[in-house]
Amino acid sequence: MSEIKIVQNVLRHNDEIAEMNRRRLRDAGVFCIDLIGSPGCGKTSLLEATLRRLHGRINIGIVAGDLATDRDALRIQACGAKVVQINTGKGCHLDANQVRHALDEIDLDGLDLLIIENVGNLICPVGFDLGQDAKVGMFSVCGGDDKAAKHPHLVRAADLLLLNKIDLMKYVRFHPVTFREDVERLNPDVDVIELSVTEPRIDRWLDWLLNKTLEVPARTDTEAPEHTPFIQGGI
Amino acid sequence: MSEIKIVQNVLRHNDEIAEMNRRRLRDAGVFCIDLIGSPGCGKTSLLEATLRRLHGRINIGIVAGDLATDRDALRIQACGAKVVQINTGKGCHLDANQVRHALDEIDLDGLDLLIIENVGNLICPVGFDLGQDAKVGMFSVCGGDDKAAKHPHLVRAADLLLLNKIDLMKYVRFHPVTFREDVERLNPDVDVIELSVTEPRIDRWLDWLLNKTLEVPARTDTEAPEHTPFIQGGI
Repeated sequence: MSEIKIVQNVLRHNDEIAEMNRRRLRDAGVFCIDLIGSPGCGKTSLLEATLRRLHGRINIGIVAGDLATDRDALRIQACGAKVVQINTGKGCHLDANQVRHALDEIDLDGLDLLIIENVGNLICPVGFDLGQDAKVGMFSVCGGDDKAAKHPHLVRAADLLLLNKIDLMKYVRFHPVTFREDVERLNPDVDVIELSVTEPRIDRWLDWLLNKTLEVPARTDTEAPEHTPFIQGGI
Repeated sequence: MSEIKIVQNVLRHNDEIAEMNRRRLRDAGVFCIDLIGSPGCGKTSLLEATLRRLHGRINIGIVAGDLATDRDALRIQACGAKVVQINTGKGCHLDANQVRHALDEIDLDGLDLLIIENVGNLICPVGFDLGQDAKVGMFSVCGGDDKAAKHPHLVRAADLLLLNKIDLMKYVRFHPVTFREDVERLNPDVDVIELSVTEPRIDRWLDWLLNKTLEVPARTDTEAPEHTPFIQGGI
């Protein structure tokens, strides 16, 4: 059997499990995000800020992927959220089977939203469907304005892009026009939300998240919660 | 044939070519570095600053790996260095065969030092020998103080670690003690050089580089150049 055929088999097997995950999440009325970004772009800090701001409005579960340590899980737990940590060892991305096992650890009927924080890597996670409803790609201004152009597969696959650490823009070399032109060329339909997770500049992200979560058909046993936008007057 | 066996075969094949690259570089008296860091930690900026500072002292060639674009190659070329760009497409790391072909494009006899800038990724490049003499791992304070602990394989494999963007330390959450304790636990023998490539704080790196390069037996046709340390009084 050739190498290419084995790679195809691995991906097909992954996609089948991803589809099972997707059905399971939809049946439970859970909107699911695969959050992909480089190491240190601020994924865990974004989750902390999101959990704090959405506390009491929707129920959020987190699956956190990392090669090693439970540091992200501990930070997220401190925000009061249910979190399952997946340590991949040398694995450079999460796969659908790992997520399937993580779902076994979570009471999905008690959730509205599940965010999967993928392993910090802008490349390998892009090719693996996990069963998510949306892929969110995350960059930081500290990484430079060329990172969209250098990661075309992520930009093309993303349903939303986040550009974090804009409060540090004045200290680093980052030309927003270059970044936005590259995104526009690769994926004209994708929205880019600029934010800073260390400041209260995440309202557009929270509104996107609530709108998407509340689009999912409400579970039969509860009423859909009402959404008062964070940005008044619409997004 | 099992998947594991195929992975083993791929790695063995890679290692054989890496050994050929290593012999070829040693025969030419070239010291070779594999520079591994996350996207945006400052690898290309470090090369620009290094090329400018070492101009006229040693001859440096660069192999630059990226998924897409020739932006790094253009930046490096502007510093007057010979550079070969490898675009990997969806490939998350360089392999020895790609480097072998890159070496064909370079006059090795005219070089003292070859720096291979790997694809921006803290995970996958670690497992692939390219034929280098030293692996240098690069982090940035903007990525957070937990990145050594989260990337134990890179820290253990590294002959030197660089911690970049220390001029931004005051604007981000980064506890140097946490970072250093994690490194110490994972690899007590590795040196960590803190630097900022946007300021002239790279003298320790330049001295490390010159010392290592000049350790390589001089080519038969030339005298080994003399090394006046950048940091007076020793490193």
